[in-house]
Amino acid sequence: MAQQGILIVLSGPSGTGKGTICRELLRNDPNLYYSISATTRSPRTGEVNGVNYWFVSREKFQAMIENDELLEWAEVYGNFYGTPRQYVMDLLNGGKDVLLEIDIQGALQIKKKFPQGVFIYILPPSLDELADRIHKRGTDSAEAIKQRLSCVTSELSCAYNYHYLVVNDEVERAVHKIAAIITAEKCRVERNNGLIDSICQTSRNVLKL
Amino acid sequence: MAQQGILIVLSGPSGTGKGTICRELLRNDPNLYYSISATTRSPRTGEVNGVNYWFVSREKFQAMIENDELLEWAEVYGNFYGTPRQYVMDLLNGGKDVLLEIDIQGALQIKKKFPQGVFIYILPPSLDELADRIHKRGTDSAEAIKQRLSCVTSELSCAYNYHYLVVNDEVERAVHKIAAIITAEKCRVERNNGLIDSICQTSRNVLKL
Repeated sequence: MAQQGILIVLSGPSGTGKGTICRELLRNDPNLYYSISATTRSPRTGEVNGVNYWFVSREKFQAMIENDELLEWAEVYGNFYGTPRQYVMDLLNGGKDVLLEIDIQGALQIKKKFPQGVFIYILPPSLDELADRIHKRGTDSAEAIKQRLSCVTSELSCAYNYHYLVVNDEVERAVHKIAAIITAEKCRVERNNGLIDSICQTSRNVLKL
Repeated sequence: MAQQGILIVLSGPSGTGKGTICRELLRNDPNLYYSISATTRSPRTGEVNGVNYWFVSREKFQAMIENDELLEWAEVYGNFYGTPRQYVMDLLNGGKDVLLEIDIQGALQIKKKFPQGVFIYILPPSLDELADRIHKRGTDSAEAIKQRLSCVTSELSCAYNYHYLVVNDEVERAVHKIAAIITAEKCRVERNNGLIDSICQTSRNVLKL
């Protein structure tokens, strides 16, 4: 039987380059699957059900909440977004690893329901660097950047609830570290309960000789 | 200030290839240092004090035990062997990682005194494979191999006291996994208490602008 897959939950302040890191991780690791969220918002042009999102009605989403079918959910600007538990569990039970990029509130909800997940917080090398990156996007005013950074300091203090901290000073280096975390977690004793038993089993055969 | 180094403790039944794994790890990672044991036995031809062992008198060794200067110690065939705490701590405090290959009793002693160490148990892919490897060495009789394997099953049950299990099916793969464990452990939140504070510090500078 294949070892159960690992749920990897990635969070971090906006501007830390989480999206790029996720794309690189998925490109390098064929056993890693991206978790697809359910949402009540309408599909935008080109978005495909089961690829970008699971598009569901408000009634369906409400039923999913009531039946505890979501690992986490939130309402954003009047639309609901959530992580369907069954889709994730099917992948994990099939030995696939699942990657989930999500905000801090969502991550903490998942940690309560699925503590055996691996929670990784992506940090900017410095707040100056983060301000630079947001500034270069050109989508925020100086005042908005200042506002955003004042939130970041409180967001960073939540990082202590995660298992791992990875500084994104260079994408390649950060991706290497997260890949190492996945490899290491697969070796953790609590994820390999059956392993020693199965080796001892072969021992009994040897000793019978 | 450099992050404190990590103490990596490697154990496993004899014949699992721990020695080869250690040599490869040390060859690949210039930040990794091998812990040198103290012993009361006489140096053999070619052995150098401070390279192979710290050669000390029985009186000196006894004083080290009494002053709690050893992370672990044992008496084997009338000679004492132990791991000097200060040598390891100096390396760790200088940001170096320290590798220690040691038997299960020694590893469990260290875990009590230094729980922040990383404890890795090397497993053979199967007991048949282990029997083959010991047989190929040609140093043990069939009876001795059988005896050794009957000890192994009880040794394997101790593996649950370690943090990680690594199967040595292929040396290169096992070395890759242990290197990943070292990389991952350096990212663990409890080893990076100062990191978030230092990033928040840069934030205050930004917000003052």
